[in-house]
Amino acid sequence: MMLNNSVKEIFSAIKEEILKANRIVLSSHINPDGDNLGSVLGMYSVLKQMGKEVYPIIDDEIPKDYKFLPSSEVIKRPEEINFTPDLFITLDSATLDRIGKSKEIFEKAKKTINFDHHKTNDSYADLNYVSEKSATGEVLFEFFHTEKIDINKAAATCLYTAISSDTGSFKYDSTSSYTFYAASELMKKGIDINEIAVNLYQNRSKSKTKLLIEVASKIKYYFDDKVGLGKVTNDIMESVGAEKHDSEGIVEFIRDIEGLELAVLLKEKKDGGVRLSMRSKSQLDCAKIASFFGGGGHTRAAGATIDLPIDKAEEVLIEEIKKQL
Amino acid sequence: MMLNNSVKEIFSAIKEEILKANRIVLSSHINPDGDNLGSVLGMYSVLKQMGKEVYPIIDDEIPKDYKFLPSSEVIKRPEEINFTPDLFITLDSATLDRIGKSKEIFEKAKKTINFDHHKTNDSYADLNYVSEKSATGEVLFEFFHTEKIDINKAAATCLYTAISSDTGSFKYDSTSSYTFYAASELMKKGIDINEIAVNLYQNRSKSKTKLLIEVASKIKYYFDDKVGLGKVTNDIMESVGAEKHDSEGIVEFIRDIEGLELAVLLKEKKDGGVRLSMRSKSQLDCAKIASFFGGGGHTRAAGATIDLPIDKAEEVLIEEIKKQL
Repeated sequence: MMLNNSVKEIFSAIKEEILKANRIVLSSHINPDGDNLGSVLGMYSVLKQMGKEVYPIIDDEIPKDYKFLPSSEVIKRPEEINFTPDLFITLDSATLDRIGKSKEIFEKAKKTINFDHHKTNDSYADLNYVSEKSATGEVLFEFFHTEKIDINKAAATCLYTAISSDTGSFKYDSTSSYTFYAASELMKKGIDINEIAVNLYQNRSKSKTKLLIEVASKIKYYFDDKVGLGKVTNDIMESVGAEKHDSEGIVEFIRDIEGLELAVLLKEKKDGGVRLSMRSKSQLDCAKIASFFGGGGHTRAAGATIDLPIDKAEEVLIEEIKKQL
Repeated sequence: MMLNNSVKEIFSAIKEEILKANRIVLSSHINPDGDNLGSVLGMYSVLKQMGKEVYPIIDDEIPKDYKFLPSSEVIKRPEEINFTPDLFITLDSATLDRIGKSKEIFEKAKKTINFDHHKTNDSYADLNYVSEKSATGEVLFEFFHTEKIDINKAAATCLYTAISSDTGSFKYDSTSSYTFYAASELMKKGIDINEIAVNLYQNRSKSKTKLLIEVASKIKYYFDDKVGLGKVTNDIMESVGAEKHDSEGIVEFIRDIEGLELAVLLKEKKDGGVRLSMRSKSQLDCAKIASFFGGGGHTRAAGATIDLPIDKAEEVLIEEIKKQL
């Protein structure tokens, strides 16, 4: 891939700052996912190998699904950092507020760098490299690979996990020729993709499984079966012993039904109201529907919060979908 | 990738035969899947572009899931071929018997070529290129790419589909650095991976969905939940209006439950007996258990037929698994 001059310049400047720094703090955002954690820990392993003192911090709990990532145990909370870092690197955070309390440390750091793949990133650091790739893991791969910085096996495992999890295993539109090139190069480091696949994709908890089956057995169809709708009520959550994140994956399960153009999941919030998630296959614009409710997202995946009881929310939503069909 | 001399020689010999031939017949095997059809139609598009008369034949029905593949409508049945081909190319067939009635045409062809990725392939053609890659689609990519034979967009769509479907979207162990390299190069041809993903992975029929939910809601657990077992009875099949292939994917759904090491699916056969399918995550050897029942397969995916009523088969199977745990 040919890089333009401005990318070359920013890469040189970033590399220079890294070489100069001794104590480096790394941070992803609150509600961390596979791309965040993979990017933070991938960067960690590379910088450790370069002989740096590196402190990955996240202002949140680490989901247990990602405990298999090399060095995940070294992640600290922001309150554990009581020094002024030479360098603070944010990963996968479109705005500075996304990093939570880590922001206080960012603000006193001598120098800051921002690596991200969200086009909405507002370039809040001293040096910013934002590239609309499939994952921040892919952005980091591009930087290391271009700058000939060695990616060891642990780092490769983390960056591969970042890319795989943020593309639904290379299925989303954001997957490009370069995404596959990155995966090809990372595999040359001897990573174990079976271990990664087991942890990312073969790890559905029993309560999650029960919840999925319960909700899926009651899918409602609208508009000649073009729309499928599932409801996660507090009652169902309780009856199957489900936890906070157990409804993840249900809306995709509904989307994957043949002939369906739009999948909808309504989830009762504990403090009232409903969380709406939508997925579409090709034509329908989820973001447009979400925006009616003050929400947002992308064409094929969007969401919103509706301050109505779940059955009323369903009614209003169906009316809105009717207009868009 | 460096190729050894024998590969270079076989590629030259194959290319020479293709260039010499005018009327070429292509065949995959009975019960065709994404890799077979993608390989046959990928080879078709490449050879058509080279100006050849090409006849893809398959001695079976084409599953409707693959009708989206470019030129799928040109596939014929063997009985429609009433001439002597200059060249017959088999794709993805480990033995000649696998191609069904197409064998008669193979036997009278002036020259034959065999492209495959199964290590059990017995090299039954005049020229054989068998390489243990993730998919025959990847084997064909290697041949075209090495020999600098142009892969057009239609062919790239077919070869990508072959690779994606035979690796469960780049998740299986058979996925290598070269697999990703192939995907990276194929994407440069402008293929639409969203269209492919919708057709391969977002296309679960309603009857299949109902069957999955019904069977999954009754999973039985054994040995401290290390083993999960589902049963597809003729009664359940009938009650949800399920068709022949609707039980596909259920055993993988069971495997993906957290903590489970082995997933088992027992499916009643219409003419008596039970079809056993197994998937494991890492340690347990499915092939070893299958072999006890006269079946076979791989470490992480194997199957067998058990000539017992379904409840009795479950009992015997659980005893056998106990020995292996």
